[in-house]
Amino acid sequence: MAEAAVKRRRSGGRAGHATRRGTAIIEQMPWRIPQNLDRPTEPLTEEGVARLHDAAMRILEEIGVAFLNPEALEILRRAGCTIEGETVRMGRDMVMEMIAKAPAQFTITPRNPDRTIPIGGRSIVFGNVSSPPNYWDLEIGRKVPGTREMCQNLLKLTQYFNCIHFAGGYPVEPCDIHASVRHLDVLYDKLTLTDKAMHAYSLGAERVEDVMEMVRIAAGLSHDAFDATPRMYTNINSTSPLKHDFPMLDGWMRLARRGQGLVVTPFTLAGAMAPVTMAGAVAQSLAEGLCAVVLAQIIRPGAPCAIGTFTSNVDMKSGAPAFGTPEYMRATQMTGQMARFYGLPMRSSGVCAANVPDGQAMWETEHSLWAAMQSGTHMVYHAAGWLEGGLIASPEKFIMDCEVLQQLQRYMEPAICDTSDDALALDAIREVGQAGHFFGTQHTQDRYTTAFYQPFLSDWKNYEAWDAAGAVWTPERAHALFKLIVNEFEPPAMPEDRREELAAFVERRKREGGAPTDF
Amino acid sequence: MAEAAVKRRRSGGRAGHATRRGTAIIEQMPWRIPQNLDRPTEPLTEEGVARLHDAAMRILEEIGVAFLNPEALEILRRAGCTIEGETVRMGRDMVMEMIAKAPAQFTITPRNPDRTIPIGGRSIVFGNVSSPPNYWDLEIGRKVPGTREMCQNLLKLTQYFNCIHFAGGYPVEPCDIHASVRHLDVLYDKLTLTDKAMHAYSLGAERVEDVMEMVRIAAGLSHDAFDATPRMYTNINSTSPLKHDFPMLDGWMRLARRGQGLVVTPFTLAGAMAPVTMAGAVAQSLAEGLCAVVLAQIIRPGAPCAIGTFTSNVDMKSGAPAFGTPEYMRATQMTGQMARFYGLPMRSSGVCAANVPDGQAMWETEHSLWAAMQSGTHMVYHAAGWLEGGLIASPEKFIMDCEVLQQLQRYMEPAICDTSDDALALDAIREVGQAGHFFGTQHTQDRYTTAFYQPFLSDWKNYEAWDAAGAVWTPERAHALFKLIVNEFEPPAMPEDRREELAAFVERRKREGGAPTDF
Repeated sequence: MAEAAVKRRRSGGRAGHATRRGTAIIEQMPWRIPQNLDRPTEPLTEEGVARLHDAAMRILEEIGVAFLNPEALEILRRAGCTIEGETVRMGRDMVMEMIAKAPAQFTITPRNPDRTIPIGGRSIVFGNVSSPPNYWDLEIGRKVPGTREMCQNLLKLTQYFNCIHFAGGYPVEPCDIHASVRHLDVLYDKLTLTDKAMHAYSLGAERVEDVMEMVRIAAGLSHDAFDATPRMYTNINSTSPLKHDFPMLDGWMRLARRGQGLVVTPFTLAGAMAPVTMAGAVAQSLAEGLCAVVLAQIIRPGAPCAIGTFTSNVDMKSGAPAFGTPEYMRATQMTGQMARFYGLPMRSSGVCAANVPDGQAMWETEHSLWAAMQSGTHMVYHAAGWLEGGLIASPEKFIMDCEVLQQLQRYMEPAICDTSDDALALDAIREVGQAGHFFGTQHTQDRYTTAFYQPFLSDWKNYEAWDAAGAVWTPERAHALFKLIVNEFEPPAMPEDRREELAAFVERRKREGGAPTDF
Repeated sequence: MAEAAVKRRRSGGRAGHATRRGTAIIEQMPWRIPQNLDRPTEPLTEEGVARLHDAAMRILEEIGVAFLNPEALEILRRAGCTIEGETVRMGRDMVMEMIAKAPAQFTITPRNPDRTIPIGGRSIVFGNVSSPPNYWDLEIGRKVPGTREMCQNLLKLTQYFNCIHFAGGYPVEPCDIHASVRHLDVLYDKLTLTDKAMHAYSLGAERVEDVMEMVRIAAGLSHDAFDATPRMYTNINSTSPLKHDFPMLDGWMRLARRGQGLVVTPFTLAGAMAPVTMAGAVAQSLAEGLCAVVLAQIIRPGAPCAIGTFTSNVDMKSGAPAFGTPEYMRATQMTGQMARFYGLPMRSSGVCAANVPDGQAMWETEHSLWAAMQSGTHMVYHAAGWLEGGLIASPEKFIMDCEVLQQLQRYMEPAICDTSDDALALDAIREVGQAGHFFGTQHTQDRYTTAFYQPFLSDWKNYEAWDAAGAVWTPERAHALFKLIVNEFEPPAMPEDRREELAAFVERRKREGGAPTDF
């Protein structure tokens, strides 16, 4: 199918239904922070919550987690943990005392304060895909290593769509930039092409410090102002089972000291790096996450922490990870119950195993997004653009996901379920009676422009009209939009002196050799 | 894209990953009645429920509903309703008294009693697409009028998939059979190719009586045994706004008298046949549905009734109906709250506006299926095979939907969230410790064959393996499975004398001229 699409596009054929109205390429919903007011789906009983908690605590008390970082070990030893080699055991009283110091919600304020995101409460915010090494689009038609240009294009989408609230990590790895300086170039691109919150990969002291410094410069902040409230965050992954490695812990502690956002996301694939049973995989994930939160709270009581879940299952025939499965959904919901039990904000993801942006990609992604909604997730990573279990970033998938995210945002607007007299519309029903229709009533005329969600990608034409317009399938329509958005993109404003300061910083750090690449 | 797929198939190219194991074409989950144990999503407050109820009652009391059927009017007049021309007004006391007579749940028992479906309680059952006049598949590559062969093929899918619990109406209209005898041929096909519950279209006395008789014959029942419990059902649609037409009411009353299943589904498109506000559209839908339930309860107290919802919104730019929208989801959830308030089972649907089985088709269908799950729907119509707002039936979409339905069924299994000691797996976690993996542990070995959902259509291979296997997108994989299933299909057993009796009935009724076609 990709080939046909490529051919059609190259022959200058019909390019989908993307239209321009004035300066807007599409009509999209304004920036807003959706409030998820539905009661979460809770598959665990109260006893189930207690049992999962007890299992997580017993893992920390009896089995322990390896911290492959001498500094972290020393901090934990002084706080009263039992250290044996690199294995750390901690009692549940201490765990609960430390976790209680973490705030139930916090904010992250990027260089544009209008893009501040709350993490916690009833809010749910969505971020772009992060970290795939590869890229796929309909024009290329195959999987290729990411480049800086691809990364920039995906950053433009990240900035363009109001339903994307934060810029996360690299939307694709720019493999054409040497690893020693990659973070400098991509951060420059991220900070100039977007004004949304972003993170630092915890991949070594130099990278973490460079990113913090660049975020500070881009926002025009003093060091004190930077430290006063979270301006960015990091996300660390444990090396499951039960291990935190050196650079992740190093970055975690650096950001903790400076009061920046901290997200810990164990990748507990049931049947591989975690038990084959979902409760066991969730218990292990909780233990791995909570002990990192403990470390942060020892370093800086009140440090803003969130626990993430990436618990899914493998395909037991091939060992390949699967995403958006029934087991993934329930694990996410269970983790949500536990996050509320611990009073910590939660992160989950928009994920799929599919290799191309087709039906499977969307049902798997839908399952992961509904799991996020149902679990009370506050921060949804990888919510746009993810394919092949995170190994591929795709602009078509990005745009398809944004259509879904906008629909979820609209779904969360309480106005849909308004039962005021105006909304019950008895007068209009009386006026129309048993004949006629509502198109022409004043009640309809007064409301029709804003009554319903208007998609920018869904095609609601009937078959004949759709066929006459080129019979364009969803990924092709998304591709056409991608080209339009990237070609017309205008970066957000940044004072010229800050841009120069950023560029000078990048140049200096490159001269110094960037960061070590021996990881 | 369709063209490419057609070409690839015709050139004898790589045909997807469908495999045969013994006599099974795919490994699917066994027949079961899923129990939806999650707490429903309830966007209305208690006051909102009361206000919607009051609005529905005021519509029935003050505005009234037209019943275009003299017999129905006479029955309602005798029961105390106010009749003015064809408009019927009824007081809320009488409405609530009558509705209270309807059972909160009932069963429908088809010719194979193992396929009995409960309607109500915590059960949720799924049916095939019903009634599209047109058909689309990848091989044909365009929209064409339905034929008997296409209808038979979709009936084979209906029977084949265990996640499809009932056979509903015609999965596509066989336009190559004259309308006067179409019901006879299709019911013969339905009753011989499937053994699942089905319905009669309320399109005239002869059709309804013929279908009841054929269902009775196929099950080998006496007339008394047929009448003793629901063996089939009908679904009627009001002609919104506020009208029930002659043949629908005629069929409704015929089935009520014989104690068969009754489903009433107003098609209240907000902004067209109902107010542009969702609460108004739901109130009108409830009024239209409840007055039909009242009529059934007058005729036969305790008649098994369910109320359906088909409330969605139009595209206000084109007037075209939209499906699986945020407004659709909330209307379905609100209707669910009201159905529980009235103590009636509920029907909703699996629907989309998309014209082909692509990403949009799946996100719209996912939204409608999750609305069904979240609303506490008991009976999900059109759950497999629907495209273009119900104007197209597609076998690829049917099979893609069945993959999703199986995942929902698995999602509803409480075992996923088991928190027993075995599931918490502390011993396995202790055994693996901070190194190694869980593939080889006894805990994994004992459980891995059944621990996780195994898809039959999702492709979980990595990109390279998927590419090497032909780079087959989801609809093409579904098409390959469709051909395999249809070619290998074996109809369910039926005693030869019953088949002969059915065939003789069809022949006789054809000789008699079938049913009038002046509707």
